[in-house]
Amino acid sequence: MEFTLNIPVKYIFGKNTIERIGGEIAAENIKKVLLLAGWGSIKKNGVYDKVVNSLKQSGIEWTELWDVQPNPVLSHARKAIEIVRNEKLEAVLAVGGGSVIDEGKAVAGGFYLNDVWDAYSGKARITKALPIFTVLTISASASEINTNSVLLNDETQQKWATGAQVLFPKVSIVDPTVQYSLPWNQTVNGFVDSMSHITEVYSTDDIEISLELFEGLMRTLINSIQKLKLNSQDYMPRANLVYSSSMALSAFPRCGLNGDWSQHAIEHGISGMFPKIAHGAGLSAIYPAWLEFMYPYNKPIFDRWAVKVFGVATFAEALKVFVKLLAELDSPYSIKQLGIKGEDIEPIADLVLQGGKPGRLKSLDKADIVTILKNSYNYNL
Amino acid sequence: MEFTLNIPVKYIFGKNTIERIGGEIAAENIKKVLLLAGWGSIKKNGVYDKVVNSLKQSGIEWTELWDVQPNPVLSHARKAIEIVRNEKLEAVLAVGGGSVIDEGKAVAGGFYLNDVWDAYSGKARITKALPIFTVLTISASASEINTNSVLLNDETQQKWATGAQVLFPKVSIVDPTVQYSLPWNQTVNGFVDSMSHITEVYSTDDIEISLELFEGLMRTLINSIQKLKLNSQDYMPRANLVYSSSMALSAFPRCGLNGDWSQHAIEHGISGMFPKIAHGAGLSAIYPAWLEFMYPYNKPIFDRWAVKVFGVATFAEALKVFVKLLAELDSPYSIKQLGIKGEDIEPIADLVLQGGKPGRLKSLDKADIVTILKNSYNYNL
Repeated sequence: MEFTLNIPVKYIFGKNTIERIGGEIAAENIKKVLLLAGWGSIKKNGVYDKVVNSLKQSGIEWTELWDVQPNPVLSHARKAIEIVRNEKLEAVLAVGGGSVIDEGKAVAGGFYLNDVWDAYSGKARITKALPIFTVLTISASASEINTNSVLLNDETQQKWATGAQVLFPKVSIVDPTVQYSLPWNQTVNGFVDSMSHITEVYSTDDIEISLELFEGLMRTLINSIQKLKLNSQDYMPRANLVYSSSMALSAFPRCGLNGDWSQHAIEHGISGMFPKIAHGAGLSAIYPAWLEFMYPYNKPIFDRWAVKVFGVATFAEALKVFVKLLAELDSPYSIKQLGIKGEDIEPIADLVLQGGKPGRLKSLDKADIVTILKNSYNYNL
Repeated sequence: MEFTLNIPVKYIFGKNTIERIGGEIAAENIKKVLLLAGWGSIKKNGVYDKVVNSLKQSGIEWTELWDVQPNPVLSHARKAIEIVRNEKLEAVLAVGGGSVIDEGKAVAGGFYLNDVWDAYSGKARITKALPIFTVLTISASASEINTNSVLLNDETQQKWATGAQVLFPKVSIVDPTVQYSLPWNQTVNGFVDSMSHITEVYSTDDIEISLELFEGLMRTLINSIQKLKLNSQDYMPRANLVYSSSMALSAFPRCGLNGDWSQHAIEHGISGMFPKIAHGAGLSAIYPAWLEFMYPYNKPIFDRWAVKVFGVATFAEALKVFVKLLAELDSPYSIKQLGIKGEDIEPIADLVLQGGKPGRLKSLDKADIVTILKNSYNYNL
């Protein structure tokens, strides 16, 4: 139990907080920013108007770059860095979910590198970055309060990650009410991603307070998504889901633990090969098969998970309850539901292994990954 | 559920971390610090040697000021500020528990005020402070990761608090092993203080994730102190206790909630009048009577506390278990055990009310405070 907690993010949470973004940027003496965004949902839900009004009021200029992909791609990040350099922009303002914030981090750190991909391939380290501001519109990655960034190399299909202390956002604005208008499957994908962030670390965890905090987060995530299924605009469950999602992949409950991360690595193979598959949907589809495969490698922790999170006596029962929950949420529990075919399994495994053998509970070789994917393919309720 | 999380502390946790303090101070370009300390236990347990060796190695000069009281007093803080001004010291290095760190904050903020007490009396606000570094030797106040400071005015007996964003320590070094050598009652006092920080907020809490996180912290605190009773040098329960204590009064589980704080206010009356009574012991002595008095004002939360923290069906049963635990830890459950007499009760209540009526669950008037103190005085197992 040895770690450093150093989270220099001003995390502003609550209703009507987006209006504060301009003032926060101005307080840092920044005059011109790159406004990075996705496919335009922020124009429909009013977030864009609130952001630009706030920028105007604080005298901040901005250049817009749209069309960040749900799995953000290298070519688009390179284009963004070009714009920042050409227009001498001083900071990145990412308005969106994890994909937009992750690409924002790529831009902020890549600005100081020869080529941004070097940070993801391991060739270079990010030690300097432009200031990053975020307005969160989808809870999932916790990118708003951590240093992680995942990017898809659209030339090689490699979906790899990087991280650095300088990639913490300076300010993150988190207004849960902007997520009222999300399509239901995006709320669910975020829930699954947050649950997965926790189980990846929890599965290798042996620190009592960390286990306790993670169990509280999992119970709250489950409890909140069930309430939101009845009314997706109910503030308290939405706020609980949103905050729990941020905490799920923040340093607070983690106590410096590394985690397993093989579920994420396998999913990165899936959405690396099929970029239209959302990260949360990919995770959901392999979740039951991944849990089942991992169980023998740390029975005590998964037995504890059953009792503490689901209130049932055995792992087998907990797994049933969890898969039933995924089904009720219309979230996939088999890669077959994503349209993946049997012949895709080996190529996905090969792509995963390009990033090295994933996993800490068990270092997964090709046969292991193929087994998990096949079991997912054949998974039935 | 609306709040800002902004904890700019580099919190370094683990064995053999004290050696890093010099480097952390040097990294901030600071050359001369005030080394503030208590009654000398850090000379016996090796912490002092580690700190000064690290300062020497990093070329940091220092001036020492000892004898910070367990309830830190205004006159000593004023003296410290004089030294900082006269010797042109650039930062405060507090080596000790909450009292030393709280006085360190008084010095760092008071440096920029006409008189430091103005910040505690409400006459002035702290908006600027010298950099604060801490090496924690007793877990209790969580002062190492929050903005709070409590000071005792030794002219008026007022024990009042202040807080400001600039009072966050820059760096806090938290090595749980230095607490192996603490007298048992100091470990217990810290446990009680941390439990109280939680119940003060928990008693007014209605945010699910906050309740969950606080319950996990309380269970871990109780579980850890019971293990430490068997072996006070067992690393994992010590580390769990130490981290849970920091988290107990950090912003992270709190979600912006204000809390009740009447237990602390009453204790400040007790140790304001009898400065030799440790804060944790004072809290412990009034804890059962305070819980009993508060129960009718939020039955659902205390009923939940019984089930979730103690695994029993009713508040009355949970209270019994909790008081039995205090007794087993040799922690007081009655102010009579502290040597307080019946005739002291009214003057203590008067002193408490000088800071205004305490409490949110119930705004406590003199009769209420007297009732709690009398019930504590007469409390029997």
